[in-house]
Amino acid sequence: MTNITPSKPIQDLLDRASGLDQKEGDTRLKAVVRDLLEQVFHIIERHDLTEDEVWGAVSFLGKGAEEYGLMMPGVGIEHFMDLVLDARDEEAGMGGGTPRTIEGPLYVEGAPLSEGSATMSDNEDEGERLIITGVVKNEAGDPLPGAVVDVWHADTRGFYSHFDPTEQNAPFNNRRKIRVGDDGRFEITTIMPSGYACPPGGSTDTLMTLLGRHAARPAHVHFFADAEGYRHLTTQINIADDPLVNDDFAFGTRDGLAPEITREDGVAKIRFDLELVSSTKGSGERSHRERLTA
Amino acid sequence: MTNITPSKPIQDLLDRASGLDQKEGDTRLKAVVRDLLEQVFHIIERHDLTEDEVWGAVSFLGKGAEEYGLMMPGVGIEHFMDLVLDARDEEAGMGGGTPRTIEGPLYVEGAPLSEGSATMSDNEDEGERLIITGVVKNEAGDPLPGAVVDVWHADTRGFYSHFDPTEQNAPFNNRRKIRVGDDGRFEITTIMPSGYACPPGGSTDTLMTLLGRHAARPAHVHFFADAEGYRHLTTQINIADDPLVNDDFAFGTRDGLAPEITREDGVAKIRFDLELVSSTKGSGERSHRERLTA
Repeated sequence: MTNITPSKPIQDLLDRASGLDQKEGDTRLKAVVRDLLEQVFHIIERHDLTEDEVWGAVSFLGKGAEEYGLMMPGVGIEHFMDLVLDARDEEAGMGGGTPRTIEGPLYVEGAPLSEGSATMSDNEDEGERLIITGVVKNEAGDPLPGAVVDVWHADTRGFYSHFDPTEQNAPFNNRRKIRVGDDGRFEITTIMPSGYACPPGGSTDTLMTLLGRHAARPAHVHFFADAEGYRHLTTQINIADDPLVNDDFAFGTRDGLAPEITREDGVAKIRFDLELVSSTKGSGERSHRERLTA
Repeated sequence: MTNITPSKPIQDLLDRASGLDQKEGDTRLKAVVRDLLEQVFHIIERHDLTEDEVWGAVSFLGKGAEEYGLMMPGVGIEHFMDLVLDARDEEAGMGGGTPRTIEGPLYVEGAPLSEGSATMSDNEDEGERLIITGVVKNEAGDPLPGAVVDVWHADTRGFYSHFDPTEQNAPFNNRRKIRVGDDGRFEITTIMPSGYACPPGGSTDTLMTLLGRHAARPAHVHFFADAEGYRHLTTQINIADDPLVNDDFAFGTRDGLAPEITREDGVAKIRFDLELVSSTKGSGERSHRERLTA
């Protein structure tokens, strides 16, 4: 059983999640939300709840409701779960590798698979060209041939395919799987995404406003990475020069996950390696939370 | 600030609400639900949450979802809130009168008003005739002329008008308001209701099954009572000879709320007086929870 809830980082997370560091908002609500969140954190630790159990509870409680998938990261529960998993890994001697961070609610199963490289765009989108390259490797630095990287991100308006209220996104625009070759390398050619704000007037936006908080994320690119014999990794990179990079309402930014951007001939370039941890130290499946399949 | 959560009656309520006294069900889920409920109870007390705040939170969290109105009584939160209000009244020297109990989610604003007496049925329903008589009075026993009693109950199949999946209930069948005269008396002529079970396969039914519990209520009749200068009362009578009278999944049965039934010439008769507490001791409004208006 971990017990990180009383620690300073988690107490700070609770303060930020409940808007205690913001002037605006409802003081009484902030105090109640902070207390409730802290108790939920304690319960997750006290009962050693798994990711699947937490997401099962979210699915149950949010059934029929629209925005539990946005509220959970918004109130810090999804990020907290990452920190609990980190602490459990550390206790079990399974730490290391690229840091995990929140998946968010906008993954869709079924993106096209390509070998080594992919162009993400199926739509015309006038934005900055972005190339992300990296290697999928193990802790010794050896490439992992056959590893699959699953990438998804928003368009320049902050909209994701399948979740675009304007319905202008092609079905798998900005969603790709890439299988890496013997060198472990992948190359992603795409258009720089924009951050997004939660739907105005929706539950998450309403709650954040009552807490004196904003409901926006910096631009970011999501990754799953899987390789035979290695633990699954869910992570993302945040675009380092986005003004919200260190003020993500979903608490998704972590050390090591906002890589440097270089610009050359009007093209932004990011290098991001994905380091996986051997599953000989314990299995590490992707959570079985509810996901859309298309 | 009240602090009844550690008391034996509330600890027993927590055990029953989470199915700890039942053999069936998921042991791990029971432990987590019990812990979560206990923390919610503590939060309600610690922050002195009002009825309106609790129901506001339920509306917010349950927005779009179907069954929060059934789950809240099912997990004992609605009953707990009654006990907290009792404890607050006692602390403030405002106790007394007919015991309050849960409203449930099935009240509809707008029932027809009559003077002194009402026949509840707009539909043919083959069941036992039931006559409920009583006096609306104050703590000294004086009748309260002009008081309004608002009554609603299920039909012989356990269905309420406006919430009848078979759509066989007329709009305000079994829903009436009665204004009492100088003698404070009201007389209700109706058909004995049946208890009901939560919709099979719905969230409440699913949760109760996982906790090893049933999801059924004994037959009962709901009352609001209001009189100028007196505190609002939300209560109900449970039909004393229903097998579930002391095993209500919603914890609505309380001492003094299962009055004796006498039978004469094939008619069941119940006497139920409604004793209201003066509002000079503090206002006592009906909660402003979301209600359907028709």
